[in-house]
Amino acid sequence: MKKIGIIMGSDSDLPIVKKAIDMLDSFSVPYEVHIFSAHRTPVEAAEFSKNARQNGFGAIIAAAGMAAHLAGAVAANTTLPVIAIPIASGGLGGMDALLSSVQMPTGIPVATVAVNGAGNAALLAIQMLSIEDKDLALKLDNKRKSDAEAVLIKNKNVENEFNK
Amino acid sequence: MKKIGIIMGSDSDLPIVKKAIDMLDSFSVPYEVHIFSAHRTPVEAAEFSKNARQNGFGAIIAAAGMAAHLAGAVAANTTLPVIAIPIASGGLGGMDALLSSVQMPTGIPVATVAVNGAGNAALLAIQMLSIEDKDLALKLDNKRKSDAEAVLIKNKNVENEFNK
Amino acid sequence: MKKIGIIMGSDSDLPIVKKAIDMLDSFSVPYEVHIFSAHRTPVEAAEFSKNARQNGFGAIIAAAGMAAHLAGAVAANTTLPVIAIPIASGGLGGMDALLSSVQMPTGIPVATVAVNGAGNAALLAIQMLSIEDKDLALKLDNKRKSDAEAVLIKNKNVENEFNK
Amino acid sequence: MKKIGIIMGSDSDLPIVKKAIDMLDSFSVPYEVHIFSAHRTPVEAAEFSKNARQNGFGAIIAAAGMAAHLAGAVAANTTLPVIAIPIASGGLGGMDALLSSVQMPTGIPVATVAVNGAGNAALLAIQMLSIEDKDLALKLDNKRKSDAEAVLIKNKNVENEFNK
Amino acid sequence: MKKIGIIMGSDSDLPIVKKAIDMLDSFSVPYEVHIFSAHRTPVEAAEFSKNARQNGFGAIIAAAGMAAHLAGAVAANTTLPVIAIPIASGGLGGMDALLSSVQMPTGIPVATVAVNGAGNAALLAIQMLSIEDKDLALKLDNKRKSDAEAVLIKNKNVENEFNK
Amino acid sequence: MKKIGIIMGSDSDLPIVKKAIDMLDSFSVPYEVHIFSAHRTPVEAAEFSKNARQNGFGAIIAAAGMAAHLAGAVAANTTLPVIAIPIASGGLGGMDALLSSVQMPTGIPVATVAVNGAGNAALLAIQMLSIEDKDLALKLDNKRKSDAEAVLIKNKNVENEFNK
Amino acid sequence: MKKIGIIMGSDSDLPIVKKAIDMLDSFSVPYEVHIFSAHRTPVEAAEFSKNARQNGFGAIIAAAGMAAHLAGAVAANTTLPVIAIPIASGGLGGMDALLSSVQMPTGIPVATVAVNGAGNAALLAIQMLSIEDKDLALKLDNKRKSDAEAVLIKNKNVENEFNK
Amino acid sequence: MKKIGIIMGSDSDLPIVKKAIDMLDSFSVPYEVHIFSAHRTPVEAAEFSKNARQNGFGAIIAAAGMAAHLAGAVAANTTLPVIAIPIASGGLGGMDALLSSVQMPTGIPVATVAVNGAGNAALLAIQMLSIEDKDLALKLDNKRKSDAEAVLIKNKNVENEFNK
Repeated sequence: MKKIGIIMGSDSDLPIVKKAIDMLDSFSVPYEVHIFSAHRTPVEAAEFSKNARQNGFGAIIAAAGMAAHLAGAVAANTTLPVIAIPIASGGLGGMDALLSSVQMPTGIPVATVAVNGAGNAALLAIQMLSIEDKDLALKLDNKRKSDAEAVLIKNKNVENEFNK
Repeated sequence: MKKIGIIMGSDSDLPIVKKAIDMLDSFSVPYEVHIFSAHRTPVEAAEFSKNARQNGFGAIIAAAGMAAHLAGAVAANTTLPVIAIPIASGGLGGMDALLSSVQMPTGIPVATVAVNGAGNAALLAIQMLSIEDKDLALKLDNKRKSDAEAVLIKNKNVENEFNK
Repeated sequence: MKKIGIIMGSDSDLPIVKKAIDMLDSFSVPYEVHIFSAHRTPVEAAEFSKNARQNGFGAIIAAAGMAAHLAGAVAANTTLPVIAIPIASGGLGGMDALLSSVQMPTGIPVATVAVNGAGNAALLAIQMLSIEDKDLALKLDNKRKSDAEAVLIKNKNVENEFNK
Repeated sequence: MKKIGIIMGSDSDLPIVKKAIDMLDSFSVPYEVHIFSAHRTPVEAAEFSKNARQNGFGAIIAAAGMAAHLAGAVAANTTLPVIAIPIASGGLGGMDALLSSVQMPTGIPVATVAVNGAGNAALLAIQMLSIEDKDLALKLDNKRKSDAEAVLIKNKNVENEFNK
Repeated sequence: MKKIGIIMGSDSDLPIVKKAIDMLDSFSVPYEVHIFSAHRTPVEAAEFSKNARQNGFGAIIAAAGMAAHLAGAVAANTTLPVIAIPIASGGLGGMDALLSSVQMPTGIPVATVAVNGAGNAALLAIQMLSIEDKDLALKLDNKRKSDAEAVLIKNKNVENEFNK
Repeated sequence: MKKIGIIMGSDSDLPIVKKAIDMLDSFSVPYEVHIFSAHRTPVEAAEFSKNARQNGFGAIIAAAGMAAHLAGAVAANTTLPVIAIPIASGGLGGMDALLSSVQMPTGIPVATVAVNGAGNAALLAIQMLSIEDKDLALKLDNKRKSDAEAVLIKNKNVENEFNK
Repeated sequence: MKKIGIIMGSDSDLPIVKKAIDMLDSFSVPYEVHIFSAHRTPVEAAEFSKNARQNGFGAIIAAAGMAAHLAGAVAANTTLPVIAIPIASGGLGGMDALLSSVQMPTGIPVATVAVNGAGNAALLAIQMLSIEDKDLALKLDNKRKSDAEAVLIKNKNVENEFNK
Repeated sequence: MKKIGIIMGSDSDLPIVKKAIDMLDSFSVPYEVHIFSAHRTPVEAAEFSKNARQNGFGAIIAAAGMAAHLAGAVAANTTLPVIAIPIASGGLGGMDALLSSVQMPTGIPVATVAVNGAGNAALLAIQMLSIEDKDLALKLDNKRKSDAEAVLIKNKNVENEFNK
């Protein structure tokens, strides 16, 4: 199975990014985690990205805050799909990271998920792998079902509490 | 090859969405185009989405403006990757469509591209297919190179005009 | 009397939604509370909505945060009036939920109240029932009067404290 | 049948408000149109609102731009449901009118629709009347069906144009 | 001397409004404090405003949050200058109250100060009275001087700490 | 009668500022118009402001766009009331000029009106003069009445057009 | 004299960037103009930046729109000062480019000027060179004086037109 | 070596500004720290700025919050480069200070860094001095290298923790 690359711009992003790691673990999807900064270690970020496809990666998740260029810098060096997690930090609530991630110019797409949406970034990567992987597709379906069941159980609880 | 589904919420979105269609054409990636509204034809939108994987689709692009629920409504009914094109309309410049598309709750990711970024939505879909398709990967690399060359030619032009 | 449906997208919304429940209780207006997710349990949300009118509902209140599609998803499946409570969560202060709720396309209106404005969502539902229910209209008038009196008492207090 | 009151703050709002008038006409729902300003003719606005219920109104639609207080000023003087149409004007794209309309304090709800969403304001008013009016409910259902059919026809057109 | 009217929409605004009261006290400018809600006690708010000029007021300060209509509702009923203090509450940081206060239509101006800027609201009212009151003008000049001296003392402190 | 100072940061602001000039003319309130830039001619702006009170001014209106510092720079040099007109220019719709004008620190208030709200800036200045000028107060009352009558005439027109 | 590098991400930025070129010409400051894209030609952008200091550049101006990463990508590869011109494009009015440019993480500063503020970007570069260049400092002073005189002439014109 | 001037509008800004002081200390770049308010001590702020070049300063850093005019007021009085640190305070998250700092009119540039980005403001000042100072250029290069090494060490740590 292809691996998922998980890159974050700073170790302060790890508590958010951990949700992506846990999600991949729960699907037994292999991954590699790295801290590469688009600005402080641009060479390493570019090297990783250029070689990602031949190194067995299927998609790359990049998490960064503020003027979040990491996903774009990765995307500039690979034609694998790149997923951005905009990290909220400071007073602007993540709007800076969101716009810096999503508003990419034509030619270099970045698949952006919600501010701090690390779990969904991992799910999106798994969905990409599932295009040609029936087992993953089945696992995704099963997760959908169990997610739905969890909602329905909560629904039962509030129905019991409030509806007479 | 897997097909790409292209859904728009309204035919007024077609001039923007056309850029996605043209991009897929330029890569000879097969696709289907539909107008399904999350709100006016929810059944059709859900039916299409539920059956998309078994009908040979690899990813779905959904374009919508304002309270852009279409990508989310599609994503709720498939575990294929879903790509949102937020369409700018009215005075809020597409900020409404962007937030409605990207801020999805955990469990149902939507890969959001730039406001009106239809070309990149198609490229992102192609990148997803390229994970297991070496020919597409090669074509993407070639497009990168020709995009770069186009920039370098423009660079030469401004250098000739301004640098003595 | 017609019932009010109260749907929330997640049980994390309950502390806010509780204000709507309490308001309906204070008017002795019957209601049902459910947790249905537009994305995780779309079938249940749609089923509830489609059958709401024949099941004796007069209006539906839907509370959701982030890319808040729930009210729109409900409204797509009923012609009863649907009221959205945008829930604030994360760094964007509820602006994402507000725009996702209020910016609905023509044909599928959603009556949106303030971010976290659950009390007003219930009052709005009661006002809708009051169109043809004189007792409720009277109760609403009485609440207005007692609300006004509460302000005037507070006014007296500050007058006594600050005006000599 | 109860009438719908349509108030706008300025005659410059009429081109937008006209869509609400046309929608009510298409449902044969009776209405009255007025220009009352929350600030320039507050007495007339309040008088109209105070007497609206006894004068046979079922709901009031209020359209205003900028610091759009009209819906709130009407709502302060009636317990009928009040629907706000925030009108976009000037450089802020209607964000000023939207926040001025929707962010009402507890006790005085205003049902806010999209910026310039006059058609939906009328539909929402009709939905309110439909709670106790089976004919209107039927007409709303029929409009939903014809709206859906219009989408499906447009879908057919794009399918014919793009899908081979 | 003319009095300053201080109105707030809710007693929850008092901690902010207290800074205006203290400022007026420090200038020995007479004032009256009231809680009147634009929406819950519109009659009292309008009555106070209509009679303010003949009752010896020179200007009115109105503090309110969210869809802050209070200053506008006061201004609609007097031709005295009205000063708005937008109060921050909820997730939007006071942007809702700011736009609801400042974006008034032509004919009914509201002099808006910063979000939560109660001290400045009082100073602005005093400045208005100072147009024809040389003593107040002198006091304002003196406050400016002592404010400047306070800055210069702080400047000395940091100079001593950091500049060798 | 005290004069009103009207300062704009650039002659490109004149088309907007002209509405303030016309309003003062219609009240026969004397004024002086100047172009002083807070940044390009800071000395002249400061000199004018420092001497404004002794030169017979009662209030100063300052119009500027973008990082609109002019009103603040004037206010820093006088204790007369200073009124800011934030001018919309460029893509941010005047939000930059609004925040730069209104968010003044404690001690230096600026009375801010709506983006491009030049007419109201003049009215606000006239209201300030009216505190001690009964003739102006009367004229303001008369304008209010004629403004209201203009609305009522427009109301009659739409009533005649739409209400049968 | 050190040269100024002017880089733009796309030739569509040239009409704005031309103002920077003209400003440098008016100061006889040497420059080089290039089109390098952070994403489409990352190698060329990095190469230029890495060698800029030894190639005789004193500062680099980078203009880009949307998720404007160019200035940051340049700054990651040089310790020369880098100046960003955020270019407005699309519905967000340049807010995306502004936040993507200015919100840089600690370690890699970018000196950001106003949206579309190309003239000021050039002036800022000249100011940097003027730190050690008395002739440039003198020219900057002279421009300030002539700018001020231009304002004062415009001031005379409006004084003559409006002040009697 | 030229000195760096550090001015803040209020001593409440010192905890943020301290990061700039520490950065300059770590480069052994001389500086002076002052508290001057654009509005409360405009004369001192202007005097300092006018004399800064002849007093041996190479650049000036100005930190201010809300309607942050300090950098612009300094820039209006010197042709040295001026760097703005927008300080976040209150509910708007620093957006007010950012726009007030960066959106300067042509002729008076201000080099703006991130909200609360004091460390980068100092680095930018050092970069400006480095244009003609090879030792500083070398120190900047060294800091880049050690910053990169710090990232790579953190990278090793997460690799060891997560990659098997």
